[in-house]
Parts: sequence; structure tokens; C-alpha cells
Amino acid sequence: MSRHLLSAADLTADQAWEILDSAEQMDAIQNREVKKLPALRGRTVVNLFFEDSTRTRSSFEIAGKWLSADVINVSAKGSSVSKGESLRDTALTVAALGVDALVVRHNASGAVQRITEWVGCSVINAGDGTHEHPTQALLDAFALRRRLGDLAGRHIVIVGDLTHSRVARSNVLLLHTLGAQVTLVAPPTLMPAGVAGWGCTTSWDLDATLAGKVAGDVDAVMMLRVQRERMSGGYFPSEREYAIGYGLGSARLDLLPEHAPVLHPGPMNRGLEISSVAADSPRSLVLDQVRAGVAVRMAVLYHVVAGADPATELEVRA
Amino acid sequence: MSRHLLSAADLTADQAWEILDSAEQMDAIQNREVKKLPALRGRTVVNLFFEDSTRTRSSFEIAGKWLSADVINVSAKGSSVSKGESLRDTALTVAALGVDALVVRHNASGAVQRITEWVGCSVINAGDGTHEHPTQALLDAFALRRRLGDLAGRHIVIVGDLTHSRVARSNVLLLHTLGAQVTLVAPPTLMPAGVAGWGCTTSWDLDATLAGKVAGDVDAVMMLRVQRERMSGGYFPSEREYAIGYGLGSARLDLLPEHAPVLHPGPMNRGLEISSVAADSPRSLVLDQVRAGVAVRMAVLYHVVAGADPATELEVRA
Amino acid sequence: MSRHLLSAADLTADQAWEILDSAEQMDAIQNREVKKLPALRGRTVVNLFFEDSTRTRSSFEIAGKWLSADVINVSAKGSSVSKGESLRDTALTVAALGVDALVVRHNASGAVQRITEWVGCSVINAGDGTHEHPTQALLDAFALRRRLGDLAGRHIVIVGDLTHSRVARSNVLLLHTLGAQVTLVAPPTLMPAGVAGWGCTTSWDLDATLAGKVAGDVDAVMMLRVQRERMSGGYFPSEREYAIGYGLGSARLDLLPEHAPVLHPGPMNRGLEISSVAADSPRSLVLDQVRAGVAVRMAVLYHVVAGADPATELEVRA
Repeated sequence: MSRHLLSAADLTADQAWEILDSAEQMDAIQNREVKKLPALRGRTVVNLFFEDSTRTRSSFEIAGKWLSADVINVSAKGSSVSKGESLRDTALTVAALGVDALVVRHNASGAVQRITEWVGCSVINAGDGTHEHPTQALLDAFALRRRLGDLAGRHIVIVGDLTHSRVARSNVLLLHTLGAQVTLVAPPTLMPAGVAGWGCTTSWDLDATLAGKVAGDVDAVMMLRVQRERMSGGYFPSEREYAIGYGLGSARLDLLPEHAPVLHPGPMNRGLEISSVAADSPRSLVLDQVRAGVAVRMAVLYHVVAGADPATELEVRA
Repeated sequence: MSRHLLSAADLTADQAWEILDSAEQMDAIQNREVKKLPALRGRTVVNLFFEDSTRTRSSFEIAGKWLSADVINVSAKGSSVSKGESLRDTALTVAALGVDALVVRHNASGAVQRITEWVGCSVINAGDGTHEHPTQALLDAFALRRRLGDLAGRHIVIVGDLTHSRVARSNVLLLHTLGAQVTLVAPPTLMPAGVAGWGCTTSWDLDATLAGKVAGDVDAVMMLRVQRERMSGGYFPSEREYAIGYGLGSARLDLLPEHAPVLHPGPMNRGLEISSVAADSPRSLVLDQVRAGVAVRMAVLYHVVAGADPATELEVRA
Repeated sequence: MSRHLLSAADLTADQAWEILDSAEQMDAIQNREVKKLPALRGRTVVNLFFEDSTRTRSSFEIAGKWLSADVINVSAKGSSVSKGESLRDTALTVAALGVDALVVRHNASGAVQRITEWVGCSVINAGDGTHEHPTQALLDAFALRRRLGDLAGRHIVIVGDLTHSRVARSNVLLLHTLGAQVTLVAPPTLMPAGVAGWGCTTSWDLDATLAGKVAGDVDAVMMLRVQRERMSGGYFPSEREYAIGYGLGSARLDLLPEHAPVLHPGPMNRGLEISSVAADSPRSLVLDQVRAGVAVRMAVLYHVVAGADPATELEVRA
């Protein structure tokens, strides 16, 4: 496997399954008292975040620590970046500290890819601009597989601000790799320009889609977070109208087949893109996704950092 | 013992003594070169702070690390909370990461209690609004016991902004449980409305109280921090008047019996509620309190996280 | 060796060489898979930063963790300091947590020295005002020695804002101790008042100095960072004029002897004090300096914290 994880598109189906299978082993330690594996002892992982994200940063930090790595958090806001240092110099400097893996979040699409061209260590994309967030797609696939079994032939509906969502982009890529079919639902203003090339059915009608009238029966629905700052961009008239047209309320929940779960990457705007009825229903995988995040990130760190070394066996003994 | 520590009122005298006795054992490692116990290896403690507190957060972080736990700091300011996530969703999300204990500080009284209703892990209250700060009361009791011996029958005076002080509230509860008698001294504007039900003697006259004329001889005095932001609230006319009426200067220090120590939870406003003469005198327990904080928090983490498990013995060998 | 490292002037030549030799051993672990030494297991290091510095803080954090210490980051901005606590109380409080070493950065010259008068633990100066930054001088010496061999008799040129540079001050002291000769180049407005007592040749003419016409052939040149906030202070007319007079462009690079490397403490203002041609040339030691920083800080932490104890042997086995 590659030394980096930049895009969900980098993974073959075999590699994705390998990560998900490793993540199952990693997840098993959550049931133990001693949640600690020696796999990355003496390795150093830096969370290099140019954009705040307590949630993703904490998930990677726990994943690294459970693997016995040294984990260092570097917030590149208010640091040397604000002193005018270039992205290249910041990345080279952090890597020169002796780092085995950089976990990078950046507000510019493509910034993480650029970093791989400069540094010698492994790089994991923890979200870049509106581009990709591959570990989110992997954890979604993990949670989906746990609920639905094999994802081949499954029909997943993704709803919301598709234009600006790195979560949607990575999920479409990974779900296709895993053999699933994806339908995208958004108001016209939030449907990406080049969506025709994504290989998905698209619709503006959430009710018809959930009822199976657009692209067949639905196996799962992923609600995307509305970035409230988009409001002023004129993408939709009001929160109320968005909730009526594209929010997952109880009536829409009833349109879904019994077996179909609901996902959301969090943090949720309850009452906007998702109602409390949906968020707290037994269909909701929201907390399963959070838990899956740690297991999947352990698996990714393990494969990316230690995986290139045939001598390093996955030791799942404590 | 309970899986949580929310209020000093939750502890029976036996439980409080048990924690203080464990804390004595924990404190002994400060005299060693290798300050590390294996008790919580493989356990994960998250400091979830909705309000800044470098002091309390660092104390819990060191306590967790000396017990070999993985400790993650999550500042909930400027994180998903600012993105509109509910307290419940934030707490559930952090807990779903696979956490054994949440150490929570929140600016709203009762918020920490609410979190225990939602999450499955242990929860420790590190200060909630004007409500409680039970580990502060325990560390005060630890420092007092070291200086005075048994606290039963002792007479402790607490002075200052009683209306807004979680430190005072937790101390009154714990000191009563431990058999001590408490006198509260404050200007009328800072004496809590329902203080009649607290089981304490109250007074507006600090000199008379320290001289033993209000409720008998004094065994210790705890000065509370003045929150300068209260000034604009009209609770007292000026810093100077507060210092004259309720500050612990050298004349007042001389009213105390020889054996009576002075406590302050810090950070101190020197020259306001406490003079440098008092803060730096041999009577001052201020730094003993800080040191006690680590030992007490180790004991609390140990009892709350590992204590439910009879198989886990307190291993105080390195 | 002393329990503190406050100034490059505190080190004898023997002590400096001892640190640099230890740093060579420490640096060797960068080539291993498991970057972890047991030397400071069970010791606690606090990074107490009153001023932001992601770069220096991360370097000390990694150094401490690779030595197996518990490392706690305390940002004293926005903490109890902003609540009006004195420097003395903050330092005493942090030390009372049970700390073995305080790594302190402060915006006031001399503040770190004051702290040693109050606390019982080791103190390392990670930069105080415009005064000193001794670990920076050590890492520069480490990188220089690797490139040039013995530094005795070498001629090092330091260029830029000498008035406000703690990096320059510590380097002059250490380089003299190590037997090197130093020439200082700056515009008149940025040449320190008492520079006559520094024991260095001084010049306003960078071209002549680099060409060897001022104080003989040059063995290395250190470019200092321009603090952009100095601009408004009237120290120099414009960035463009500064770059023309004192920036290291390709023409000036060609004035240097073949063997002479270029150093910069980072973060660099490319196009201002250093051109990309210089920063990215094979002469550049910029990333070597970053890597050296971790090794040197490991050596300093080791000597300062464990060095006083004859029973503690440097164990460079993993």
C-alpha cells in the first residue's frame, strides 16, 4: 500500500477491504480494559492542522496513542504560518523534526497533495478544502458494512451541500470502489458543476429518492452538514426552507426501508439537515461513525506508517 | 464507589477518607525519581473543558499520565460547540471515541450532571458554573489534614464571594461530611440567598470571626478568589474597600491562632483578597494545595475508573 | 553540569562539547524505526510558554517524548496569567505540580532567570525577550560542526536585526566559547548599542564582509529573521531596501567560499532576509538545524534533568 492516504480514489477495492478488515481488529480493543497496541511504539505522528477540528484531531490523537505512537498536535493557525512562512517551509520544518506521519488538515483543496511532493514521511489527508476527507469515507464504509454487510450492489443516497463537501466527494469515490451505487440529492444551487462525471444518479427531489422512485430502493442515507456560513452566499433562501426541502424529518424517515440506516459526519445541526427523531432513532449510525473513526484511523496509521515494512506484523495483542 | 464524581455531597465520610488515603499513597511518588504507576495503562481520559483552566487541566493531565493513562485535551471552546452542536451531542461524540473517563469543566451549573445521563463512561466534575468543584474540596481537605491531622471538630472559616464560588460550596459539603464546623464570612452582597440551609455559622465581620468571637477558635481560613468581573456587578464598591473589609492582611493574620493555616485555591489576587504577607507566610498552604491536587486527582481517577473492578489492585510500585 | 540552562554563557567549552556529543548520540535514533530512549521515564517536563512558538514547543515536546518523559504543554497566554496572577505565582504553581523541568519562553528578557530563583526544579530557557535562546545556539553549533568539523578558528558572520535578536546574542556567546570568530553585519539602526563589548568585528557592508574583505574569509553565514513588526518602528525604510542591503540573494551567495553554509533559525521570510536560491541551495542548513534542534534538546533535557544523578547512565538502547 502507498505511504500516503490522500484520496479515497487512491484505494483499490482490495486495499479498502484490507483497511476495513484491519479496522475490525483495531475496533476489538475497545472492548478491552487495556486499549493499547505496541504496533507504532517509537513512531511519531504529528497532527498538523491548518484548520480547527477538535473532532477529527482527537480521533487521530487517540488512534495514534492506542497504537503507542508519540502524537504531537501542531495547530498551524496562529503559529509560524501567521508569521508569513510558506506552506512548503512549514511542512518541511515539521517533517524535519523526525516525524513518521503527518496528518494534515488544510482549508485549501490540494494542499495536502502538495505536501507529499516535499516531505519524505507519510502523509494522511484529514480534510483539504472542498476536495477530500478519505478517512471519513472509510469510517462511513466501516459503519455501513457493520449494519448492512457487504456493500456491493447497495444503494446509498447522499443529501445536502454537495458543492462544498469533501465528505461527499470521498464517499462517492470509495462507495463506487466498493461496488455500491450512489444517488446525490441537493438543491440546484448546491449540486456541483461537474456532477455529470461523478457516475451518480442525481435528483433535487429528496422524497421521491427516499421512496425509491428515482433510482430504486435505498439502503442508507447520508445527511451532510449545512455550513451556516453558506447562508449568506445565497445558496438557499432560509434555514426553514432548507429543512423543509432537504432536512431528514420523521415523515421522510418513514419513506426509507426498515433496514436502511442514517449517517451524518457531525457536528449535526439538529432541526436543519437532520431532525432529532432521525438523529436519535435506532437507524442512526452517528455514534457508530465516531467509534469507527478511531478504529479506521488506527488501521490507516498502521498501514501507512508500518505497512511498508514486511517485518512489522500487526500485533493485536496488548 | 460511584463511577462518577459530581459533587462533594456524593461522598460518604468513608469514601472521602478512602480517597484521601489513596491520595497519600499517590503523593508518595512525588518523592521518587520515576513518577509513574501502571494503574490506568490502556485507559483513556479526556479533559473536556468548555471553560479555560490551565491550572486544573494541567493537574488532571499530570495525574492521568502518572497513572499511565492516555490523556487527551479537548477544548470545547472554538470547536464543534461553536459550530452549534448541542452539549449532549458533544458529550456523546467524545465518549464514543472510546473514553474511560471524561473530566469536564463547564460554565453552566449542572451541565456535568447532565452529561452523566447521556454517556456510559465515568464523569468527573472539574468545576461547573457556580455549583461545585469537588476535587478542589478534596485537595483542600488533603492539605488541611496534613497540617492539622483529623478534621473532625475542626473549625474552618471560608471568606469571600460565597455567592459565586463553587469552591466554597464543595468545601462546605465535604468539610461537614468530615465532621468539621464551617463559618462563612462575606459582605452581605456576596452571601448566598439560601445560606441559612447550609448548616454554617455566617458573619459579615471577618475580624471578629478570626478572633474566635463569632463561632469559637479558628483552625484554618480559606480565602476565595475575587472575580474581578464581579466589580462591575456592584457587589462591592471598590477593590480597596474589599481588601479593607475582607482581605487577609498581616493584622488579621495575627488574629489567628498559631496553628491555623491559610488556604487559597488560586490564582491569587495579591493585595486584594490576600496580602503577600499571608500568601508567603509559613501558614500558607497554597503550594501544598497545588501539589495535593495531583495526588487527589490521581486517587479520584483511580477509584472512579478502575475502582469498580475488583481485579484491579492499586499498584503503587513503578 | 548546572541544573538550569539559561544562557549560552553558562556553558564552558567542555560542557558545550559534552552536550553536542550527547546530541550526536541522540540524533542517531532518528535513523531507527523505534525512536524512544528510556532515559527520562517517569520524569515530567512542562513547556511553559508565555509567548507562542509552535516550532520550539514542538521540538522540545518531541525531545521529551523520545526520552520517555511525560510532557505537558502549558500556554500561559489566556490562562491564569490573564487573570492577574504574578509570574512568580504562576511559576511556583506549575512547579508545585511535581515537575522535573520547566522549559520556559517569555517575552521579557530576564524572566526565565527570575524563575530559577523561585522554583526547585530545573529550568531551561527557550527564549526570553531579546536576551537569549541558548538551545538555538547549540543546535546551530551542532549543524555547523556537522558541516565544517571543529569550530575553533572558524569565522561566522551573523546578519540582520542584531538589536532584537536573542538568537544572535546566544550564538555570539557560544561561538566564542567554542573558539570561533564572529562578525556582525546590520544596518546602523539595528546594530546594538553596546556591541563594542561583544568581542566581534562589526560592519554595515554585507558584500564586503561576505567577500572576506572585512575580517577575512567566511566559513558560514547566519541570516536572522526580520520581525515585520519592526518595520513600523522605523528601523529600516522598506522591505525592498532591506532585501537589497541585507538580504542573501544569489549574487551574495556567490561571494561566499564554496564550503561555507547558510543558516537561518526560521521561520524564513523568503525574498526579504533570504532568497529562495539561498534557502534551497545545497549550502542551506535550515532543515539540518530543525533536525539538530530535537537532538540538542534531548541532550539538554538529559543533562539538566538526569545529569546531576550519577546513577543515571545515558541509555541509548531502545
